[in-house]
Amino acid sequence: MNCAVLCIGTELTRGELVNTNAAWLSERLTAEGFTVLETVVVDDDVPRIERVLRRLGREVSFVVCTGGLGPTTDDLTAIAVAKVLGVPLVRDEASLEHIRARFRRLGRPMSPTNEKQADLPQGATVLFNELGSAPGFQVRIGEAEACFLPGVPREMKPMFEQEILPRFASRVQRTSYQLRYRTFGLPESTLGERLAGVEEAFPGVIIGYRAHFPEVEVKVLASGKDQAAARAQAEAAAAEVNARLGDHVYGTGEDSFSGVVLRELISRKHTVALAESCTGGLASSQLTAHAGASAAVLGGVVAYANSVKVGLLGVDASVIERVGAVSEEVARAMAENVRRITGADIGLGITGIAGPDGGTADKPVGTVFIAVATANGSRVERCAFPWHRAFVQQISAHMGLKLVREASQSLVAPAG
Amino acid sequence: MNCAVLCIGTELTRGELVNTNAAWLSERLTAEGFTVLETVVVDDDVPRIERVLRRLGREVSFVVCTGGLGPTTDDLTAIAVAKVLGVPLVRDEASLEHIRARFRRLGRPMSPTNEKQADLPQGATVLFNELGSAPGFQVRIGEAEACFLPGVPREMKPMFEQEILPRFASRVQRTSYQLRYRTFGLPESTLGERLAGVEEAFPGVIIGYRAHFPEVEVKVLASGKDQAAARAQAEAAAAEVNARLGDHVYGTGEDSFSGVVLRELISRKHTVALAESCTGGLASSQLTAHAGASAAVLGGVVAYANSVKVGLLGVDASVIERVGAVSEEVARAMAENVRRITGADIGLGITGIAGPDGGTADKPVGTVFIAVATANGSRVERCAFPWHRAFVQQISAHMGLKLVREASQSLVAPAG
Repeated sequence: MNCAVLCIGTELTRGELVNTNAAWLSERLTAEGFTVLETVVVDDDVPRIERVLRRLGREVSFVVCTGGLGPTTDDLTAIAVAKVLGVPLVRDEASLEHIRARFRRLGRPMSPTNEKQADLPQGATVLFNELGSAPGFQVRIGEAEACFLPGVPREMKPMFEQEILPRFASRVQRTSYQLRYRTFGLPESTLGERLAGVEEAFPGVIIGYRAHFPEVEVKVLASGKDQAAARAQAEAAAAEVNARLGDHVYGTGEDSFSGVVLRELISRKHTVALAESCTGGLASSQLTAHAGASAAVLGGVVAYANSVKVGLLGVDASVIERVGAVSEEVARAMAENVRRITGADIGLGITGIAGPDGGTADKPVGTVFIAVATANGSRVERCAFPWHRAFVQQISAHMGLKLVREASQSLVAPAG
Repeated sequence: MNCAVLCIGTELTRGELVNTNAAWLSERLTAEGFTVLETVVVDDDVPRIERVLRRLGREVSFVVCTGGLGPTTDDLTAIAVAKVLGVPLVRDEASLEHIRARFRRLGRPMSPTNEKQADLPQGATVLFNELGSAPGFQVRIGEAEACFLPGVPREMKPMFEQEILPRFASRVQRTSYQLRYRTFGLPESTLGERLAGVEEAFPGVIIGYRAHFPEVEVKVLASGKDQAAARAQAEAAAAEVNARLGDHVYGTGEDSFSGVVLRELISRKHTVALAESCTGGLASSQLTAHAGASAAVLGGVVAYANSVKVGLLGVDASVIERVGAVSEEVARAMAENVRRITGADIGLGITGIAGPDGGTADKPVGTVFIAVATANGSRVERCAFPWHRAFVQQISAHMGLKLVREASQSLVAPAG
């Protein structure tokens, strides 16, 4: 089924936001067998919204539209749709009640501008928004079924999955199948070299890469005479991809590295404590971002200043004096001491120079020592990261969690 | 001058790439005084590329187009442009020589497909590509001047700056001016109510909102007969906006809340230490994300488990037993103790229930106690956040930094 994605918002035409909604919707629609012919962005202007809707109503069979459903005066989508259809806006009482209930639940006063969010084009089918106040809606415009969703990704995505796909998926003949793998530890160019020849060995398969520093996602997309054939080919190619990449593949789909590490810690009943200097709590916050973290994460120390390394972690001040806070010895002491003090199974220590200042000839910016300690002893990795501050912090946190994961794998899970 | 951005490529309509080119071009064009009415993406299909070019040639005065200039069979842009214009493709000898010289310099064999990159629509003006093999070109389509650039951002951006802007900038009358304010503490709907009537009081001014939880950006965009008039009107309206929003405006432009808090701490020579439970290090990592954080941030304790609250922070276990870890007493002890242990000027304590589990009737999910301690004593705020785990953590970190900021403001800066 031919379709288009329409995103409405002056913040997009002015380039203030990168249009991640369009990419996400295009990818999901493609994966579900739709053919996206066009994605288009227009500003918050009623005549231009009308014009693009009339055009798409002639050119495609299905339109997914995001944005312009909020409470403010620059949210004009419903007005434009009503004009295209030549119908009035009508207050939808069920949606209004949902908005009211939401504000009651939040304990906040509801303003009249929020009521406007329940004004929908007469005859529209309401699309339920569980996570926000603005309902979506579906109407027919010309030859196209057009669905309108809020622009907030967190609301838009579940509405697409739960309210839209089930209505349209049965009309689509799926002839492709995609598998997504999350990797950490190899740059995109090296991944490409490792996977050279896979596309030729598995006809109909395309290997795609998407970098989200410090990770790269590898996508295996197969096309075939029907979805079963495509799936079989995708899975065959994916087995080859996984064999070639080994441990660098840590998960699939929407997995996150910290989530996988946490899941493994919990399943092995291991606890972890962290002592972070240059990452300033980043690794801890990544682990504790996940529900259930308390089963494995005890916490630890953000030892940003040397006085905290000494005072709270008991690192020997004379060692810092002698070899510097960014050193193998201090990283090891941080990992061992935070483990001992908290009684955790695994201790992590990270100390380094995130930059932009603080580098020396001996230890340039990007020098990071990462140590992990268990009952079996400790190990330290010295890293030399060639990136700017934010990237050094991000990859240091990732590397720290990688060492925690390896330490957990190396420990025998305790009984019980 | 009204313009449009057109991006060509099936990798975009399939959602394999996020369209950062469109955002970058839209932002640059807007900053240079162009009005971007639309950005559109189509796949590598000659009839569809023709159709969108003909349409844009009727609707706008200027089109910047990226993509489809490469050497492979799915690079079809020049062919489509030639068809729209009814002219043949003609090999441009100067471009061909540039491509050849490039391959000689790289020491790589040149394939016949690369020669195709020098085939341009007859009569087109060549746009020089210093960093790649594909030349760009400029033609007139209908009412629009249309410029075609490669899709590789590294090549596209300098070509836009050096080859395109100088040709068109003089034709643009800049008649708008925008100011951006960053706010924390009021939801978008309340901001809208507080700013009701500002647009009417300042003709030509549009107030825009952009929510990035837990913040909302407020944009004041003014149009006038020239840029000076627009700027004066924007600044007048902005003064009114700031007066109405007060302290909820924490910064402008690209400021971040943690960055502003850190800057203020450094300017007052205040140090801070943090004791985080439910935020798991998030507030610490936000402060230490900024270069120079070591001038103010000592670090602290991620006291996720109660054993760490007791063991590392010295919180009285019997108090936790009696009133629970999520309590005013424990938050206060965390803030006071982390301050005392580290010797910081300001201590922050955050303890709460981020969810999804752990809530009770008395303390539902989203209950967070945030305490701040200074030499003048301590205060605790009890918050009831109605959101999911990630949002509870994010807004708790923000609220914590807000209390740190207020504590710093209330302390007299030490001499020296």
